[in-house]
Amino acid sequence: MTITITAFERSPDGGKGLARDTRVRWALEEAGLPYEVRLVSFKAMKESAHLALHPFGQIPTYEEGGLVLFETGSIVLHIAQHHAGLLPAETQARARAITWMFAALNTVEPPILEFANARLLESDRPWSKERLPLVVDRVRARLKQLAARLGDAGWLDGAFSAGDLMMVSVLLRLRPSGILDEFPTLAAYVARGETRPAYRRAFAAQLAVNTGKAPD
Amino acid sequence: MTITITAFERSPDGGKGLARDTRVRWALEEAGLPYEVRLVSFKAMKESAHLALHPFGQIPTYEEGGLVLFETGSIVLHIAQHHAGLLPAETQARARAITWMFAALNTVEPPILEFANARLLESDRPWSKERLPLVVDRVRARLKQLAARLGDAGWLDGAFSAGDLMMVSVLLRLRPSGILDEFPTLAAYVARGETRPAYRRAFAAQLAVNTGKAPD
Repeated sequence: MTITITAFERSPDGGKGLARDTRVRWALEEAGLPYEVRLVSFKAMKESAHLALHPFGQIPTYEEGGLVLFETGSIVLHIAQHHAGLLPAETQARARAITWMFAALNTVEPPILEFANARLLESDRPWSKERLPLVVDRVRARLKQLAARLGDAGWLDGAFSAGDLMMVSVLLRLRPSGILDEFPTLAAYVARGETRPAYRRAFAAQLAVNTGKAPD
Repeated sequence: MTITITAFERSPDGGKGLARDTRVRWALEEAGLPYEVRLVSFKAMKESAHLALHPFGQIPTYEEGGLVLFETGSIVLHIAQHHAGLLPAETQARARAITWMFAALNTVEPPILEFANARLLESDRPWSKERLPLVVDRVRARLKQLAARLGDAGWLDGAFSAGDLMMVSVLLRLRPSGILDEFPTLAAYVARGETRPAYRRAFAAQLAVNTGKAPD
């Protein structure tokens, strides 16, 4: 059954891998699944045909036969539950890996989203300069706790899992700010994710869309 | 196997059901599972014994035999996957219900968390009054999309599911602000969740902790 995902026709990051389709591409590559991509313009994302797939008018979506999913967490979990390579087989380890997916999306990412909003939506506001350090401190508080748990381990709980895929993807959003580099073990953790062949293929594929060049 | 969750010794909301243990209690009640509760003080939440269970020093946690989970999304999903009452049996419907769990936690809740931060952490800042409407508009944008998808349906996708449990729980955080009431179909959706017997039992149980009275 053909898998089709959607991605930005032109990503706001110009192909730095920060658009959320990269998370899904990465999961598909880890699972060794071929997929097709349908590019969507900003205008089309807000129109009814796309809203029927994704009620919040975003990318990515996931189509497989009659199944339509949105939300990267849900899509990655679906792939991970039906194919090897992203979740441990043992029941308890599996539940813990899924816990890290939720931790990435509901505990670590929200302050990062707030930081992104402060920079993208409020940078021209009179409070921007004074407020930004407060927002950054909320991000740091989470990273400090995450670094304490990771310790000197390679991945969050045993072997690489969908939990790591999601946490690395969330943390990657911070790299341009320099905040990630304040936490060397987390920066190394993210770099470890980026060196995985599946991540490299996913990154190259999304970059190719945004530069108009085919991946090497 | 005994299930033990953690909850605030004294919830910041005084028992209005907004602490996250209510989400887990609700799921356990829908599944008809007995559970025990261990109360944790704010001080103990930041100490090593609790951090070993929950790296971000929060509640709730979930213990069942040797399994330890944190993150309400993960805990509710774990309960839903192993017991009837929270997810459809059919594979595609099940994946869609899980999608709504992630949508609640990673698309609808982040702007609500930002709104909570603006009110709780920045209300004494000089920008507070001017900034708050911007933050509220981000919440409204999501609610508008959610209301458009829900339409006049009772639940988000067919029968009540863990996706509705999580979405209702997330939206409940908005009730005190009055924003929810700007969207009558969403307010009715939340009220529908609150009238479920399982929700009522969960609410009564967390209230009893915070008032020191046993549930009726």
